[in-house]
Amino acid sequence: MFSLPEPVRRLIEEIERLPGIGPKSAQRLALHLLQSQASEVEALARALVEAKRSVVPCTECYHWSVGGLCEICADDRRDRTKLCVVEQPRDLIALEQTGIYHGLYHVLLGRIAPLDGIGPDQLTIDALVRRVREGTFKELIMATNPTTEGDGTALYISNLVAELPIRVTRLARGITPGSVLEYANREILTDALTGRQEF
Amino acid sequence: MFSLPEPVRRLIEEIERLPGIGPKSAQRLALHLLQSQASEVEALARALVEAKRSVVPCTECYHWSVGGLCEICADDRRDRTKLCVVEQPRDLIALEQTGIYHGLYHVLLGRIAPLDGIGPDQLTIDALVRRVREGTFKELIMATNPTTEGDGTALYISNLVAELPIRVTRLARGITPGSVLEYANREILTDALTGRQEF
Repeated sequence: MFSLPEPVRRLIEEIERLPGIGPKSAQRLALHLLQSQASEVEALARALVEAKRSVVPCTECYHWSVGGLCEICADDRRDRTKLCVVEQPRDLIALEQTGIYHGLYHVLLGRIAPLDGIGPDQLTIDALVRRVREGTFKELIMATNPTTEGDGTALYISNLVAELPIRVTRLARGITPGSVLEYANREILTDALTGRQEF
Repeated sequence: MFSLPEPVRRLIEEIERLPGIGPKSAQRLALHLLQSQASEVEALARALVEAKRSVVPCTECYHWSVGGLCEICADDRRDRTKLCVVEQPRDLIALEQTGIYHGLYHVLLGRIAPLDGIGPDQLTIDALVRRVREGTFKELIMATNPTTEGDGTALYISNLVAELPIRVTRLARGITPGSVLEYANREILTDALTGRQEF
């Protein structure tokens, strides 16, 4: 970075740490912020610190909350017979945006990843089993990511609850809207054939 | 935004105000920040506020500085016979990154834009004329943007200094490296023909 005061260089460095933001974008964002009103920049800084300080895991499902229960767990219109297991809050948000699921969630806060040194104890699996044991759930929907680690985590959990009187399901797999069969890989087509549905 | 605590929604809104960041990216950045260490988020917030508070216009050229003269004006190795006029600090930075200009700069902090209600008085043109009058400059290089408003601003300034003993130049215009003649528009080709150079 040429001819920039040190505070500007530091701001650019901090912005560059964000995912998907390269040096050029970081510089553009920093220059934009320096030319904004001080009040706008302070609002952004405050929102950052405030969100980070006040947001804690929901005591029930580990989704984000501002203390106690999250909005979903606290909402008595939700269907308390269904529990959907996701890896992260971002997965929960993606599912909520479909608008078609009205049950509760359980956020694992990760997936079992032996190569990264993450075992079942570092996730919220104990709390999940306790919820299934003590709750009113009739169906446990595995919505971990369709990766080796996500699938492994779902398998591990389904073994843990195998003895309990609960139906365990997982998200459907198959071809995606707008895709082209010719370019779908073997795994996708295997899933699509294995899980074929009545027309 | 579904099922997100208010502080998270506010953070996403603040991030969305940044240029070139749509709702999806804002959400992704906010989720990333919430899963980062508190110390990292605070470092970003501090860098924002600190840059905005400590960076003020250079008393000489109006580029960013941390008080008094900017790094360029304070650097006694710079050529004090050349003065390059730019609209914004970002233009100065782009020119500095070429590494081939060693003179000084003058940042107008905008361009004359009657449609936006911006006249010469809102820019640093008075200070520029004073610098030209009192300084040791032999050449004034117009590096405003090649737009109607940028060209108009350069023309306005060149009229103001017409009586002064200084050579006024502007950035060369023509075809750009890597471009294709077939797709260059009439203005580009007119500039390229008019300003043609010895081979």
